[in-house]
Amino acid sequence: MSKSSKSAAKAAVLFQDLENGCVTSPQGFLTAGVFCDIKRLGTGKGSNKGKKNDLAVLFSERPCTVGGMFTTNQVCAAPVKVSQARVASMLKSSTASAQAIVVNSGNANACTGERGMKDARAMVDYLEKCLKLESGSALVCSTGRIGVQMPMPNVKNGIQSACDSLSGERSAATEAANAILTSDTRPKEVAVELEIGGVQVRIGGMCKGAGMIQPGMSPTGQRPASMPKKRELHATMLGFITTDAAIESEALQACLEEAVSKSFNGVTVDGDMSTNDTVLALANGVAGNRTLTANSRAGLKAFQAALDHVCLELAKMIVRDGEGVNRVVRVLVEGANSDLEADQAARAVGNSALVKTSWNGGDPNWGRIMDAIGYSEATVVEEKVTIGYRAPGGKTFLYSLKSGKPTRTTLDKLRTITELKEFDLLIDLGLGKGGATLYAADLTEEYVDFNKGE
Amino acid sequence: MSKSSKSAAKAAVLFQDLENGCVTSPQGFLTAGVFCDIKRLGTGKGSNKGKKNDLAVLFSERPCTVGGMFTTNQVCAAPVKVSQARVASMLKSSTASAQAIVVNSGNANACTGERGMKDARAMVDYLEKCLKLESGSALVCSTGRIGVQMPMPNVKNGIQSACDSLSGERSAATEAANAILTSDTRPKEVAVELEIGGVQVRIGGMCKGAGMIQPGMSPTGQRPASMPKKRELHATMLGFITTDAAIESEALQACLEEAVSKSFNGVTVDGDMSTNDTVLALANGVAGNRTLTANSRAGLKAFQAALDHVCLELAKMIVRDGEGVNRVVRVLVEGANSDLEADQAARAVGNSALVKTSWNGGDPNWGRIMDAIGYSEATVVEEKVTIGYRAPGGKTFLYSLKSGKPTRTTLDKLRTITELKEFDLLIDLGLGKGGATLYAADLTEEYVDFNKGE
Repeated sequence: MSKSSKSAAKAAVLFQDLENGCVTSPQGFLTAGVFCDIKRLGTGKGSNKGKKNDLAVLFSERPCTVGGMFTTNQVCAAPVKVSQARVASMLKSSTASAQAIVVNSGNANACTGERGMKDARAMVDYLEKCLKLESGSALVCSTGRIGVQMPMPNVKNGIQSACDSLSGERSAATEAANAILTSDTRPKEVAVELEIGGVQVRIGGMCKGAGMIQPGMSPTGQRPASMPKKRELHATMLGFITTDAAIESEALQACLEEAVSKSFNGVTVDGDMSTNDTVLALANGVAGNRTLTANSRAGLKAFQAALDHVCLELAKMIVRDGEGVNRVVRVLVEGANSDLEADQAARAVGNSALVKTSWNGGDPNWGRIMDAIGYSEATVVEEKVTIGYRAPGGKTFLYSLKSGKPTRTTLDKLRTITELKEFDLLIDLGLGKGGATLYAADLTEEYVDFNKGE
Repeated sequence: MSKSSKSAAKAAVLFQDLENGCVTSPQGFLTAGVFCDIKRLGTGKGSNKGKKNDLAVLFSERPCTVGGMFTTNQVCAAPVKVSQARVASMLKSSTASAQAIVVNSGNANACTGERGMKDARAMVDYLEKCLKLESGSALVCSTGRIGVQMPMPNVKNGIQSACDSLSGERSAATEAANAILTSDTRPKEVAVELEIGGVQVRIGGMCKGAGMIQPGMSPTGQRPASMPKKRELHATMLGFITTDAAIESEALQACLEEAVSKSFNGVTVDGDMSTNDTVLALANGVAGNRTLTANSRAGLKAFQAALDHVCLELAKMIVRDGEGVNRVVRVLVEGANSDLEADQAARAVGNSALVKTSWNGGDPNWGRIMDAIGYSEATVVEEKVTIGYRAPGGKTFLYSLKSGKPTRTTLDKLRTITELKEFDLLIDLGLGKGGATLYAADLTEEYVDFNKGE
């Protein structure tokens, strides 16, 4: 508990939120979102009510350094394979750079075989052609139904049309932020401003989530040993970060890995890891700061803090707008034998059907929490576990269990916290120094109803 | 696939189901189920509508050899600790034996500290006193709410009253089978008859399930290395097996471990592993067969087959009567690198919120299945995966995917299977010889509604 307050105090404000911020808040970025009828043709049924945008292009006037994080699902989509390979080669090269991203919703281009790979490559090729970019400088992301081939004539029309309407206007960013959504109910955008070496730089971002949400991304798509194997997440989350800061690819990639591990990789809606999860970051250097490298101590620290904030705000928006989500719970595990064990305990709780339904009912049911940590891979000693609840931003916890013993705090009192739309749940295992934070959600009848059929 | 049919053919019928069978179908067993008001007093609210039975006693006229399997949840209930220790000492001793079991519903006696342990011990002591049994010969199981102290005066009244009304009548067995239920909607009973060395012997059983159901039991409560760590199960399942066969404890325990691994440990309702899961087997030898030992080849084989059947039938009843369950899916994984990996793939599918909701809608959504096996701990190569559906008892599969490629079978055709109340789902990973079977269930709005609050 003291640990939490300490880290809160530590996060000195080195950046400020921009009102109405978005991916084009940083200088030199243009964007567009269009409707090209991907879903209807893709599935051969249904109608695109109100012709919801389904394709976005994000473009930088200058070539960018790049960072990327990709799903660790063994079944991964064609666009993930294409973008992951391109980012990997950009990170190895001193000259290759990224300049544009095409993103479509309505079709995941996953489990689509060789034709899917060909289509994903055709998407980046066509984007490069439309924008007269160097070969290899475009990236691609897709989200939507698995196992359906892409309707390429429509996709190409969409890419052409988006390239023709690229704009730095605020409204264009919203068009793009809407185009990448699937079952999300609202666009998710944010931007911050900070100073690096006396120069004002900006970081913007947009993302989508909704269902199939428990990302477990890595730079290579391979699971690092430190990542719990059980990282299930679904509906796909896509995140796009833009910045006009000048920062070397190596440093940008390292900052992105750090930020994603504390944000997108720390949320769960339904415990299902998607085939398409991707976060891409583009830095175009238009702000003109002295280029940040892995050795730029103060500047890099400020950049990291701002990027952490952008990613965490976006990740929280995903949980809040998750399919059928009614309540968001920040699960704080402390006192575990290791950070990995803390994460395992947090995920067992955040993905337990019984815990999630009790949250839906606003029920402070610590029995189900004890049960879930008990079957997690984390070491748990019943007599050492402390469980407490806290209002968001609150300083003190109401405890339901201390060192394995129920407290005298009444259920009615605990319910004043657990009936809030958001609250913190502290689970102190009382064993070691490992900690983890997971943003989780309740399980509702709306989620079940929504996912019954497509 | 050929493997499945081969094993079906291999299971020659060595036993026959008894009509209206139960735990007192074997000779020498008496039972009783009573109402002693455990839940209302335990939680201090609500009413026992129609005074549902909440305490059962199972008694054998002769001392029994014993077998036991217990939850591997690190947070395990007091009665589990007491019974597990007693079974362990009986298995080590050549003289100690079991003769009676007391089971209560309405209170799990879990997370109840030292007082909970004292109460669990008092329950077996009092049962021994009422029945004038040798010290150490009684066992105890509890199921119900976690974290509430047992209302011991009521429990003792219940034990006394049950002991006073012990009976071999069929109706008494139903009273007991009803007393152990929590959110189950119906009692679960079965019995079979078989011949061992020319002597007719019987095996009976009863169990309860409903929610918090994905057992992962072992003889010691420790996870064996061969058991996937991620074995989540909840609501507690309790199973009680009786037999009038004469069989040494060591052989009975081995048979029970084998049978449980293929039945109770192979079902999931909601992926949550309980603090209280227990299966106990009592063999009183009244049938008079030559005592089965670990070396009795033919007799032991017949006994094993019959016990497998009893446990599997009971386990299937648990899934069918799971909280809010509308559809039961037998997940058959083949072609995995190992049996362990096959089990991991099956559990990823059977516990995926998105797969389970698609089953609820009768939707043959193979994309969600691919996604789930992709994030499981099993090795998966997209291009090698085959997915098929089969009606229960059917011989041929309808395939939606063959070696990673969608087949031409239409969704409407596949729906003729996936809209059945029960069906088989085959997932052939196409890699090795590992296989696993998991009985899983859909996720419904009724489940969420039921578990919202208590």
